[in-house]
Amino acid sequence: MSNPSAAPSPRTRVRRVAELANYDAAVLHAIIDAAYLCHIAFHDERGTHCIPTACWRIGAHLYIHGSNGSRLLKRLSENDACVSITHLDGLVLARSAFNHTMNYRSAMIYGRFEAVADKHAAMEALMEHLAPGRQAEVRGGSDKEYAATTVLRIALDEAAAKVRSGPPLDDAEDMAQPVWAGVLPLAQSRGRAVPDPAGGGAAMPAFVRQWGGADSA
Amino acid sequence: MSNPSAAPSPRTRVRRVAELANYDAAVLHAIIDAAYLCHIAFHDERGTHCIPTACWRIGAHLYIHGSNGSRLLKRLSENDACVSITHLDGLVLARSAFNHTMNYRSAMIYGRFEAVADKHAAMEALMEHLAPGRQAEVRGGSDKEYAATTVLRIALDEAAAKVRSGPPLDDAEDMAQPVWAGVLPLAQSRGRAVPDPAGGGAAMPAFVRQWGGADSA
Repeated sequence: MSNPSAAPSPRTRVRRVAELANYDAAVLHAIIDAAYLCHIAFHDERGTHCIPTACWRIGAHLYIHGSNGSRLLKRLSENDACVSITHLDGLVLARSAFNHTMNYRSAMIYGRFEAVADKHAAMEALMEHLAPGRQAEVRGGSDKEYAATTVLRIALDEAAAKVRSGPPLDDAEDMAQPVWAGVLPLAQSRGRAVPDPAGGGAAMPAFVRQWGGADSA
Repeated sequence: MSNPSAAPSPRTRVRRVAELANYDAAVLHAIIDAAYLCHIAFHDERGTHCIPTACWRIGAHLYIHGSNGSRLLKRLSENDACVSITHLDGLVLARSAFNHTMNYRSAMIYGRFEAVADKHAAMEALMEHLAPGRQAEVRGGSDKEYAATTVLRIALDEAAAKVRSGPPLDDAEDMAQPVWAGVLPLAQSRGRAVPDPAGGGAAMPAFVRQWGGADSA
């Protein structure tokens, strides 16, 4: 991953609109760290499947978890998989129908998942990703809960990012078309925190008060 | 798809947390219509792949498109695929680490894509999905552009939705844990439209002015 212009493998070489490809680890990590979930493709005797699941990064690996009984997790330790993360940043409205496109940041990772031995450290990193500082406040996982949980990780060695940003690119002969052109931005936004109606008197911690933008204490 | 409680096939029967499954067409359609992109899993001689692409719905089919040269589109007419769409609606913070989860609406479709003969109608439906009314304003697709474009569709016959919403569900013995519990909402939001700096004098149409919430004319 040290050369941002070279794909780490033939199957991570971006083919469509290849000038948008990026093989730099920092770009890849930023795309992963901005995500709460990924889509994982795998193949078994029933066909090819595409399953969304929570993900997080520790160093040069992407982590997932689930119940020991999960078909996804069983299959992933037996076969190669492909993981995709996509952030949609906007609709790009060009002067011609054909040149309409979207702005996005996407990551794709190929490889084989492996079981993680230190499940405690991995799950605490997930909690830190979701809600910084919360691990110290919740009732931590019991031995029984940890025993029922599988944690897997995949190396980020065979991965690529693809990013489009900025305004539309129209053909020269379309520039005088009398139509508005530009970008309609899209982003993941946070709404005001909703306390569990089942109650419990604990005060909102700072990161919950700040979640929705304005301080909602 | 007429019975909301019955899966249309063995591979669309939701297995994990099966009480969140929904096989009703209206629920499925709403999840698809709220999306601008999907992830598609397919398998070829290089392995299993997971590729994001724009999607839209016409009736009981999901549509995608791309260049005739696209590997994705070539492979999809040769093999079964799985399409996933996932909207992340919030992080669900429980009183125990183990019961943390996410709120989401997800759809999964299995089947074989087929080529669409009436590409004009299909692409105009995509434009209507992205920017209502815009088709009449842009420079429409030329014969050459349409000839270079492949449009595929997949029937929504073999599909399932899975939806989680609402507050955390904690174990009874954790309800007194002194920690805030509730939902941190997430949503896709729209930012203020960004005109192409390359100019062109056309006024912002109403849907562009309204895109960012406040009227930004």
